[in-house]
Amino acid sequence: MGKKRVMLPVEEVDISSVKYQPQLTKAPHLTGLALKLFAWLVEAPVLRSIILSALKRQNNFNQLLRNTVIPETPMFRPEFPPQDPEPGVVVIDEDKDSTHRVSSALECLTSYDPSQHWNHDSPPFLYWSIRDYAHAYRSKLTTPSIVAEHIISAVEESNTKRPSMPLLISFSAEDVRKHAAASTQRFLEGNPLSVLDGIFMAIKDDIDCFPYPSKGATTWFHNIRAVEQDAICVSRLRRCGVVFIGKANMHELGMGTTGNNPNYGTTGNPHSLDRYTGGSSSGPAALIASGLCSAALGTDGGGSVRIPSSLCGVVGLKATYARIDMEGSLCDCGTVEVVSPLAATVEDIMLVYAAIAGSSADDRISLNPLPLCLPNLSSSYNLDVLRSLRLGKYTEWFNDVSCPDISTKCEDALNLLSDTFGCNTIEIILPELQEMRTAHLVSIGSETMCALNPDIEDGRGSELTFDTRISLALFRSFSAADYVSAQRLRRRIMYYHMEVFKKVDIIVTPTTGITAPKIPSSSLKHGESNYEVSAYLMQFILAGNLLGLPAISVPIGHDKEGLPIGMQLIGRPWGEATLLRVASALEEICSGSRKRPSQFHDILEQYRL
Amino acid sequence: MGKKRVMLPVEEVDISSVKYQPQLTKAPHLTGLALKLFAWLVEAPVLRSIILSALKRQNNFNQLLRNTVIPETPMFRPEFPPQDPEPGVVVIDEDKDSTHRVSSALECLTSYDPSQHWNHDSPPFLYWSIRDYAHAYRSKLTTPSIVAEHIISAVEESNTKRPSMPLLISFSAEDVRKHAAASTQRFLEGNPLSVLDGIFMAIKDDIDCFPYPSKGATTWFHNIRAVEQDAICVSRLRRCGVVFIGKANMHELGMGTTGNNPNYGTTGNPHSLDRYTGGSSSGPAALIASGLCSAALGTDGGGSVRIPSSLCGVVGLKATYARIDMEGSLCDCGTVEVVSPLAATVEDIMLVYAAIAGSSADDRISLNPLPLCLPNLSSSYNLDVLRSLRLGKYTEWFNDVSCPDISTKCEDALNLLSDTFGCNTIEIILPELQEMRTAHLVSIGSETMCALNPDIEDGRGSELTFDTRISLALFRSFSAADYVSAQRLRRRIMYYHMEVFKKVDIIVTPTTGITAPKIPSSSLKHGESNYEVSAYLMQFILAGNLLGLPAISVPIGHDKEGLPIGMQLIGRPWGEATLLRVASALEEICSGSRKRPSQFHDILEQYRL
Repeated sequence: MGKKRVMLPVEEVDISSVKYQPQLTKAPHLTGLALKLFAWLVEAPVLRSIILSALKRQNNFNQLLRNTVIPETPMFRPEFPPQDPEPGVVVIDEDKDSTHRVSSALECLTSYDPSQHWNHDSPPFLYWSIRDYAHAYRSKLTTPSIVAEHIISAVEESNTKRPSMPLLISFSAEDVRKHAAASTQRFLEGNPLSVLDGIFMAIKDDIDCFPYPSKGATTWFHNIRAVEQDAICVSRLRRCGVVFIGKANMHELGMGTTGNNPNYGTTGNPHSLDRYTGGSSSGPAALIASGLCSAALGTDGGGSVRIPSSLCGVVGLKATYARIDMEGSLCDCGTVEVVSPLAATVEDIMLVYAAIAGSSADDRISLNPLPLCLPNLSSSYNLDVLRSLRLGKYTEWFNDVSCPDISTKCEDALNLLSDTFGCNTIEIILPELQEMRTAHLVSIGSETMCALNPDIEDGRGSELTFDTRISLALFRSFSAADYVSAQRLRRRIMYYHMEVFKKVDIIVTPTTGITAPKIPSSSLKHGESNYEVSAYLMQFILAGNLLGLPAISVPIGHDKEGLPIGMQLIGRPWGEATLLRVASALEEICSGSRKRPSQFHDILEQYRL
Repeated sequence: MGKKRVMLPVEEVDISSVKYQPQLTKAPHLTGLALKLFAWLVEAPVLRSIILSALKRQNNFNQLLRNTVIPETPMFRPEFPPQDPEPGVVVIDEDKDSTHRVSSALECLTSYDPSQHWNHDSPPFLYWSIRDYAHAYRSKLTTPSIVAEHIISAVEESNTKRPSMPLLISFSAEDVRKHAAASTQRFLEGNPLSVLDGIFMAIKDDIDCFPYPSKGATTWFHNIRAVEQDAICVSRLRRCGVVFIGKANMHELGMGTTGNNPNYGTTGNPHSLDRYTGGSSSGPAALIASGLCSAALGTDGGGSVRIPSSLCGVVGLKATYARIDMEGSLCDCGTVEVVSPLAATVEDIMLVYAAIAGSSADDRISLNPLPLCLPNLSSSYNLDVLRSLRLGKYTEWFNDVSCPDISTKCEDALNLLSDTFGCNTIEIILPELQEMRTAHLVSIGSETMCALNPDIEDGRGSELTFDTRISLALFRSFSAADYVSAQRLRRRIMYYHMEVFKKVDIIVTPTTGITAPKIPSSSLKHGESNYEVSAYLMQFILAGNLLGLPAISVPIGHDKEGLPIGMQLIGRPWGEATLLRVASALEEICSGSRKRPSQFHDILEQYRL
């Protein structure tokens, strides 16, 4: 029971007078015995409802979803108003083969200068890019097979190291060697499939990559769901010659933002092994950060690509909802999630994105996406477009972080972007951020619960980690009416964002409200539940998911402890090209502030012929 | 807990081998004290979950929604594959004013022959049509003001009669007189607004019609929601000169299919006053059946227009989902409901439909409807089109009714249709009808619960009827994951129907599996809960709602007790024109089998000048 509250219709809200509400998630921080006990309590018949009710009351859950009249009709998945085409872009033909799309993407990049990385007198750099590998293979400086051997030994070493660094959940040296040999052979014959041929990538454990199982980091999921073929995105990459190094570690079932994993071990952050990578795509981000592969595929339903990218100092793109066919991923039925690439650099993101993008036939009919585009970075027009762009910043939100370093560094990067490229920063207001969080939690939680229900009812629930079990107990308590209310909120939040996008081209925020948190040693064996840290990690993330907007995290520097800080750019629906254009400019001006992590394998350097 | 079941992907189901599963809803039939006790039990903290679990188990609810892996992605509201334009139709310009649309509709009708009804030697007929009134006004045989007086006295008489016949919940003789006088004046000046000028219509109590309150047949809803203007559909009619006689009776909040109403009295069926009208649009159907108005607007979320039309022997159209703007109706946010017209004849349905149709701006963007069309019945091409049409019949389903009269009479009508017009009947199979029922119940229940939650949490629940309270207790027990599962089922059921529509143009069924049931005298004071009768009433109804398909109920005769039988035609998405074409043919061949109800006011006859 509670007093009824009536929201104004969204068009009547006076946005200019909206006050910022600080983020205030309340929940106990649990590890070890306390975690086990709490999991038991939230699964016990009567206690369950008492505890969850208290938790929801503290977080205004029912007040928002049950006591409030929300005048808008539900928006059950992102629906976008018609969008104008972006300026200065190259259209990438979705109907063409992925190798063609990658060729088009290559033409968008500034010209490649081998002397930059291959001359020992050139300035230091961070990561070998896809084009560096492509150059090395074509110049016979090395071969995919040689690179494979180093990756295999590095992976094997990381597994035996103490503390262990479990980057991959499934790994077959034999499979890696086989595909690397085939690629080497293609180079020998002068017939590489594309610039991605012989490029090593990792696949998050919730995307099918034959012959590996898809466990979703659980101990049992592969026993109930066989993998018989590649996911569509994986097969698109395979056609380009990509070599997959295995299934990357992740937070169990993607249901967490730290990457904590009692089943297969928690991946340490390459910048500081006693800290989290962020999640849920922990393995993909750590593999790229440590130089073991050029790119990876993750899934992002609540920041799962952007959060670990930010914490590990790499680039993570979350594409527009439905931009990439989800067939063959474990979460192929949600309204917030999309398969998306992580890479060390923006240019590598562009190449991988061009290969994997392409909506499903159903979504092309029902969502009518703008054509797939990339920014033409090689055109002189690029600077003109950058100068015309307007960046929106909601200062009070921007500054609501756990440590001021984050907003200061992001502010500096933003100023540098304005000074260098002439982009204008415009102050904006985004109302109802708490409503956005609640609507997102209910959406992702309910859709996850729906997918897992048959197995949980079949008795598999007790084989999940305590952290997951607590989340599931919460998700199970969401009523169908809560779900519908959340979708009404989704329409409001969409409206506010679309209003902002009438005035700006990009919304800028820090990617996360916290840098890589310490891994409590008490969390290693049984896991950890820490909704407050989660809330900081997801502080700026959710418009990308609830509204399906494209967003990218770009590393812009480090905090006082040397931990990476990411800045997030959020774009218009289908506006990946503008996003990538600004991301590239941001990367360029911040390149001097990035540092290689302490855990780094300089594969091309070591294996040069 | 329960054993996991895995559904085949829908494309792999061998439809030809699917066995028909008879409808088997199980729930207690309750009235009086038992009803009150049951309502109390399902609202009591612990008992609630025990009773509802048992009820759900009996009806395989959890087995379908929680234990089953449904491979399809959710379809949260009807999404239609692209449709071909219908043959032989006139496009009605949605952007034009409603008076223009009505003029276009008029041109689709066969020519009007006044001698047919106005000559005392002409054969007997059932109802005065809209064109009969229009002719009478234009020929100065009567005036809207004169007709108004008779309607006013008939309504007042029906309220005082024992047993009372509460047709309207809100009624203002003054308002009726005022608008009738204005219409009369327009005729005097030779300036009627359209053929609908001076036509009397009723509006179901869940659609706003200023200055009347919208109570939704509750005792309190008008206290928390003021009506300040007409619903969009009502204002479209008003522009055409329609005179509204008040707010018609209905099942409380539309949450029932009988029309039982302890708050304002249960409307008796004009064909047999001790029987239900069907619901929830009980008042609209009874008003038309008894000759008090030519047409009415209802809302149909689970048969609420078609069921009472069938039971009262009138015509009821359920338009395609989103074909008619829902703004200003109490259920403006659902995924199954649409405002739709009831009338005595198909031609009157066409005129009213042309006036009210037109999707909201949002829906026109996101659903891309085919243009609004009507069949050109005046064209000689009409017979050719009819001859080319294929009618689909699922015989085992068609015959699964409470009394064989229903299927026999519908079968006869179908044969007559084939013999007279040459339409072909084709045998079809529709799998997973039980899944369709469950998915519909969860969808409508959850969306209703969402709309009512703030008031119920505010303490209004106890002011609802026991019947409603029992339904709400059930709806409250639906989990968010149940809701998402139901939407996955929706995609399957859509697939099966679209497969059928590759082979046929119309699906034919009886409208209901039962004719008008007796009103138990024990139900008058406190209501009735009878899910088994409901299941028979909704037996053939739900594709129209869950899938948003257009459907129409046409009276085709009477059972042995003289109660009307309706036949339902279900059409392709946006296919109202074909539906109306066949409905008109069906009406023509069945006109000899229809009877005027015992309760009939021959308004034009009595008030001829």
